[in-house]
Amino acid sequence: MSSPIRFAHRMTGLKSSPIREILAAAQQSSVISFAGGLPATELLPTMEGWVPPATAGQYGPSEGEPELRQQVVEILQKRGLTVTSDQVLITAGSQQGIDLTAKLLLDPGDTVALESPSYLAALQVFSLFQANFSDLGSSAEQLNFAQVERVLQANPKFSYLVPTFQNPTGYAYSADERSQMANMLDKYQIPLLEDEPYRELDYASDTAHVPIAAQLRQAPWLYQGTFSKVLLPGLRIGYITASQEFMPSLIRLKQAADLHTQRMGQHWVSQWLSSGKQPAHVDNLVVQYRQRRNAMQIELERHFGAIASWREPKGGLFFWLKLHEPQDTRLFLKAALEAGVAFMPGEPFFGHGDEKMGYFRLNFSHSDPAQIATGLARLKKVFEQGPRSI
Amino acid sequence: MSSPIRFAHRMTGLKSSPIREILAAAQQSSVISFAGGLPATELLPTMEGWVPPATAGQYGPSEGEPELRQQVVEILQKRGLTVTSDQVLITAGSQQGIDLTAKLLLDPGDTVALESPSYLAALQVFSLFQANFSDLGSSAEQLNFAQVERVLQANPKFSYLVPTFQNPTGYAYSADERSQMANMLDKYQIPLLEDEPYRELDYASDTAHVPIAAQLRQAPWLYQGTFSKVLLPGLRIGYITASQEFMPSLIRLKQAADLHTQRMGQHWVSQWLSSGKQPAHVDNLVVQYRQRRNAMQIELERHFGAIASWREPKGGLFFWLKLHEPQDTRLFLKAALEAGVAFMPGEPFFGHGDEKMGYFRLNFSHSDPAQIATGLARLKKVFEQGPRSI
Repeated sequence: MSSPIRFAHRMTGLKSSPIREILAAAQQSSVISFAGGLPATELLPTMEGWVPPATAGQYGPSEGEPELRQQVVEILQKRGLTVTSDQVLITAGSQQGIDLTAKLLLDPGDTVALESPSYLAALQVFSLFQANFSDLGSSAEQLNFAQVERVLQANPKFSYLVPTFQNPTGYAYSADERSQMANMLDKYQIPLLEDEPYRELDYASDTAHVPIAAQLRQAPWLYQGTFSKVLLPGLRIGYITASQEFMPSLIRLKQAADLHTQRMGQHWVSQWLSSGKQPAHVDNLVVQYRQRRNAMQIELERHFGAIASWREPKGGLFFWLKLHEPQDTRLFLKAALEAGVAFMPGEPFFGHGDEKMGYFRLNFSHSDPAQIATGLARLKKVFEQGPRSI
Repeated sequence: MSSPIRFAHRMTGLKSSPIREILAAAQQSSVISFAGGLPATELLPTMEGWVPPATAGQYGPSEGEPELRQQVVEILQKRGLTVTSDQVLITAGSQQGIDLTAKLLLDPGDTVALESPSYLAALQVFSLFQANFSDLGSSAEQLNFAQVERVLQANPKFSYLVPTFQNPTGYAYSADERSQMANMLDKYQIPLLEDEPYRELDYASDTAHVPIAAQLRQAPWLYQGTFSKVLLPGLRIGYITASQEFMPSLIRLKQAADLHTQRMGQHWVSQWLSSGKQPAHVDNLVVQYRQRRNAMQIELERHFGAIASWREPKGGLFFWLKLHEPQDTRLFLKAALEAGVAFMPGEPFFGHGDEKMGYFRLNFSHSDPAQIATGLARLKKVFEQGPRSI
């Protein structure tokens, strides 16, 4: 006999996802996967020849390694965000920054103001902390600041934004949108969590993408980045920086979560950054991923031009498509996997319910141009056959 | 003008700790630190010559690397706890297992049944999740099962136990206490989180220390261990295993916390375990740490025999002392640091208030016998001078 388990109430917000289970099947080598946000494995730097410092085996500081924190300061300075190294906390990737921010700010029933659609794993964490969502407007096109103002006026606990090559839409805020958003957050003093995992993957390089956090004068802020998209995701190394008033609590939350981020990875990232290899590495990623994006654009025009619409993304890792005839795209997933191709249905990226909107997301960084052509040909057939229940 | 920040209510449970700030000063090389729970740096294995597999740079499974999960199954089997590899989740150290369990089970106002004193960083996490504590009895001596039964009868949300070389007391449950505790948890169907970071550091080796979780028939359970105390803490690699009914939620919580544990460290631990080096390495740690414990015992008798009482621990990393004349031991900390020695005051290990109990904890693994002699001579003088305010 097993006892009925009294889970915490927050666990009802962390539902079993049929998508998660189905996508586990996408790991098979016979499946061409456009589902995840994975970098190209063959472009990852190698750690060969590197010997970690002996002292890095010991416990370390919760804040992170001093050298890496200073390097993050310099990275942020180049983006236009001026902080000191005591404002930098090294995280186990951006996902942890979201968890720490939720712990820091969210009580059950609090509201988070979000673009719609938004990053699904952020929605998941905010739901876990029993938050409600308010909709700042579409993240697929220019912001409607009348709507933004209505939402901020209602005093949400904080705002979560991915302003540069958003996941899933790929949209990047213009300079004007950034300053308007900063003004509006200041006006209502709504804290900002700005999440920028993709900004270096910029295929147009036609604008500076100054962080919104750097333009705030009143509102408290948190800003985070990661080495997962431009170095090695398997290391789980990212960083979060924030207004001074958040830092002591953030560091204590980090300590309570896992004491500190693993030190070997921090040392590896640090030596890689000091080696001077990073600019050329990112340049190469941009060249390769631009080719893949271009290949996907061409194949999409060939196969999906008649049944869906999309914008070519200027950066990041994803195309965001909408079927002309809206359907629940989850109903195509099983057939797609049987046909040897995986994609990400759009529904989980929306905070509000499971509407039949016909969106889906395709990753182009993890597959080479030949795989992109083969995979999209397969996917087109699946969509032609129509939805079926899962 | 800066806006008043609306922190989450749980943050009031994560108070600023003067101890944390003061102990940061203990990092100086001039200070002999008995404060932390650090392994001896000079005994840590080296990673030299190891090349991580190229694929470990990519994102990995939330559950952890399959090979390491299987190795954990075998480790647990030897302890008498039979699980399958799908019941093993690789964590970023034991601290993360505590965070995940708190998320899984705790609503604000829930009660956690604990030994008293208990691991301070577990108390910190449970407080963060707004739990109350109920006191199972002293962790420094044999359990009073009448008290245990009163506490479990009151239906706490779960019980957190460190039955083998407890932190801070060093106490290890007897075989009889383990089976009685298992029976009582079963009787009232109270879930157990059993935390065993220290069990391999066994200086007497006179009993098997079968996990309580292995003896449960009714109550759901979670059990965790770590490679931080017997390999490299800087890697942040531990594991949690649980009754089947907890696993899907636990894995989703892990994914929401940081996607997955860093893969390089998992691969390193895995190859180290398969190399066959671990038994000799642990044997050596036990020999060295036993010498350090013995040295501390002798120096304590010399310097503290007249003013404090303690039991020589049979395992783990700590002595737990009580002053004959109870004082708030935090009031000795600043003077100790000025004298070049650090210790851990006892107050933070108690869930209930800041009583003037006169306890303090001393770590013996991080200092060699000569440092132990010097440090305890310094500490004795500090205690002779009496408390002063901080």
